[in-house]
Amino acid sequence: MKILRTIGVDDLDDIAIGGAVLGTGGGGDPYVGKLMAQQAIRKHGPVKLVDVSELADDALVVPVCMMGAPTVMTEKLPQGDELMNAFTALEKVMGRKIDAVLCGEAGGVNSTTPFVVAASSGLPLVDGDGMGRAFPELQMVTFTLSGVSATPMVLCDDKGNSIVLDTVSNGWTERLARAATIEMGGSALLAFYPMSGKVAKEAVVRGTLSLCAEVGETLRAARSAHEDPVAALAGLLGAEILFHGRIMDIERRTEGGFARGKATFHGVEEYKDQTLRLDFQNEFLIAERDGEVLATTPDLITVLEADSGDPVTADSLKYGQRLVTLAWPCNPLWRTPEGIELVGPRYFKYDMDYRPLSAAG
Amino acid sequence: MKILRTIGVDDLDDIAIGGAVLGTGGGGDPYVGKLMAQQAIRKHGPVKLVDVSELADDALVVPVCMMGAPTVMTEKLPQGDELMNAFTALEKVMGRKIDAVLCGEAGGVNSTTPFVVAASSGLPLVDGDGMGRAFPELQMVTFTLSGVSATPMVLCDDKGNSIVLDTVSNGWTERLARAATIEMGGSALLAFYPMSGKVAKEAVVRGTLSLCAEVGETLRAARSAHEDPVAALAGLLGAEILFHGRIMDIERRTEGGFARGKATFHGVEEYKDQTLRLDFQNEFLIAERDGEVLATTPDLITVLEADSGDPVTADSLKYGQRLVTLAWPCNPLWRTPEGIELVGPRYFKYDMDYRPLSAAG
Repeated sequence: MKILRTIGVDDLDDIAIGGAVLGTGGGGDPYVGKLMAQQAIRKHGPVKLVDVSELADDALVVPVCMMGAPTVMTEKLPQGDELMNAFTALEKVMGRKIDAVLCGEAGGVNSTTPFVVAASSGLPLVDGDGMGRAFPELQMVTFTLSGVSATPMVLCDDKGNSIVLDTVSNGWTERLARAATIEMGGSALLAFYPMSGKVAKEAVVRGTLSLCAEVGETLRAARSAHEDPVAALAGLLGAEILFHGRIMDIERRTEGGFARGKATFHGVEEYKDQTLRLDFQNEFLIAERDGEVLATTPDLITVLEADSGDPVTADSLKYGQRLVTLAWPCNPLWRTPEGIELVGPRYFKYDMDYRPLSAAG
Repeated sequence: MKILRTIGVDDLDDIAIGGAVLGTGGGGDPYVGKLMAQQAIRKHGPVKLVDVSELADDALVVPVCMMGAPTVMTEKLPQGDELMNAFTALEKVMGRKIDAVLCGEAGGVNSTTPFVVAASSGLPLVDGDGMGRAFPELQMVTFTLSGVSATPMVLCDDKGNSIVLDTVSNGWTERLARAATIEMGGSALLAFYPMSGKVAKEAVVRGTLSLCAEVGETLRAARSAHEDPVAALAGLLGAEILFHGRIMDIERRTEGGFARGKATFHGVEEYKDQTLRLDFQNEFLIAERDGEVLATTPDLITVLEADSGDPVTADSLKYGQRLVTLAWPCNPLWRTPEGIELVGPRYFKYDMDYRPLSAAG
C-alpha cells in the first residue's frame, strides 16, 4: 500500500487548524483535538496516511468520531482508550478485523480523532472524510448518499457504558445516538458506517486531511512572510470574503444536544455601516448581509480572526472580536437533489432554497 | 424437567387479571396483555410453566419485558415478533441458546409478555419474576440485589430498530434504555438480565405466575358464588383494606417516560368523611389516609372496583369511580437495607422511611 505521507506529532498543528477552518464553526476546539492526537502519536508512533484508491475492494474501513455539542466535547476530552473501545467493539460486532480508519467529518476535534485510533491500532488512515466539512447530525455524510448504513454502530462513553445500534435508517441512528449522547452527559465516542474499500472509493470525500494540512501550512507560511493570512487562505480555497466586522450580539443555547444560535456583526472598513448575521447549529449554516442571503449550507461558511487568520468556532465567538467571514463551494456530492435534501437550508428549517456559490478568484 | 402446569389460551384470563392486581396500578392494561399472549398461544401452542428449581445450574435464563409509560404500551401493543426479535438478538449476543424464559415483573402487560416468547420459542417459562409486583424502573428487580447485570441487553422498537446495551451498572442501563425508549416513541421491547439457572434459583421471586392465576381464579370464583370478590382476594393475599371511596381528583402527567400523578378519594360507608391520597409513578407508591401514611413502596398497594374486584390501573382511574384500596407485604427480598435503598420511598424522593406492613387476617 502506497503511503501518501507519514503524520508525526508536529504535523498535527496544521491539520487541527485546517480541520477547524473546514469545520465551519463546528467540530470543537482544534487545540484540544490536537493534544489528544499528539498524545496518541507520541505513545504509539506516527500515522500512515493513504489515498482511498489504495484500499482493497474487500477491505473493511471504519470511520470514528466524537458526537455531541462542541462545548461539551471540548470539556470532556476523551482519553484515546475510549475511542479505541468503540473501534474494537465494532470490530467484534463485525466479526472481522478492520483494515483502515476513516475520518467522519472535518472539524477541530473530529479531523484529529481518527489519528488517535490510527496511531493506537497501527492501521492506515484514509485521506478523506464523509463531509469535506462539518455537519451537526450523523446521517449528514456522503456515505448516506452512497447508501451506506450507519449501523452496526458502537457508541461509548467515558464511564465504560457502550451501545450497539442497528437501525432502519441513518436518520434513526441519529435520533437514537443523540438521545444516548445527551444521557451520557453530552458527548460520546462512535465507530460507525462500516464499509468495504469498494464502497469507500465512491462514498468518501477525497483528500480532506491533506487539505486540512495545506490550510494550516498556508496560514503559517503567510504569517511568517508577513502576508495577509486571510487572503492567502481565500486564494487556496477559492473562497469569497463575505464580511469583515466586529461581533455586536450573540444569542446561543444548547438545545437537543446541539449548540444553536445567531451572531450579528457590524462592519468595518469597506463593510462599514453594514450588518452580517450568521446562524449556527454547531456549524455556521446561513450568512445574511443586510438581509440578503449570501451563502447557505451545504456551502462552507467559516469565520477567521482578521489579523491572524485563525479559525474561530461558533462556541468561542465573543463580543467585540474583529473577524472575517469566508464562504466557498461545497463538494459536488452535496449539490445533488439528494445532497440538498439531506443538508440544505430546508432540512434545518430555513424557509429558503440553496443558493450555490461559485468558486472565487 | 417437571412441568408445573400447561398454560393454554383460556388460562390467560386469570393470569392477566392477577398480573394487574400484583401490578399495583402499573404494568399496563391486562386486557391487551392477554390478547397478545393468547394470539401467540393460539399460533404456537400452550406454554410449559416450570419451577425455577427445575433449571440446570448452567442453563441460560432470560427475562423479557415491555418498557415504557403504560398508557403508551397499551396503545402500541406489539406483535409477538418484536418481542422475539429482542430475545433472539440477545441469544446471538450471548453466543449460545437460551434455555428458559423468565418474567421481569408482574403487571397487566409484563406478566403476559413472557408467554408470547415462551409460546413462540417453545421454551419453558419459569414460574416467578424479578419483583413479585411491578416497579417503574428496570434496575428495580431482585436480580439486581443478587448482583446480576442487566446487560448485555437488547432493546427493540416496532420500526425495526434495535440496540444492544452494555453498561457499568443497572442504574445506567435504566438511564440509557429510558432515553432510547422515549426516542422510540414511548415503548420498547427488552430481553435483559441473562443469568444462569444457578443464579436464577437465588434471584427470582418464586411462584409469581401461579399466584397471578390464583388471584384471577379467586376473583372469578367469588363472583360465581355471589360472594364479595374484594374480601376473597384480601384473604388470599393477606391484604389489609385501606379504604373504600370515590375518586374526587386526579392529577397526572407523563414525565421522563413515566406516568406520574396523585389520586384523591373521598370515603364511603365506614370511611365516610375520610380522604385517601395515592401517589403513583406508573405504580401506586404511597397511600395516605387523612394525612397518615398507611402503606409505602415496596409493600404492594392496589386498587379494585368495589363491586367486581377487578383491578384498576393508575392510568385508567376516572373521576367518580367507587374503588377499594388494598395493601399487603412485599417479598422479603425487598425488606433488606439494599432492597429498601433500591425501591423504598426515599428512592422516589418521598421524605419518609419505609413502614413495613404486617400480613393481615
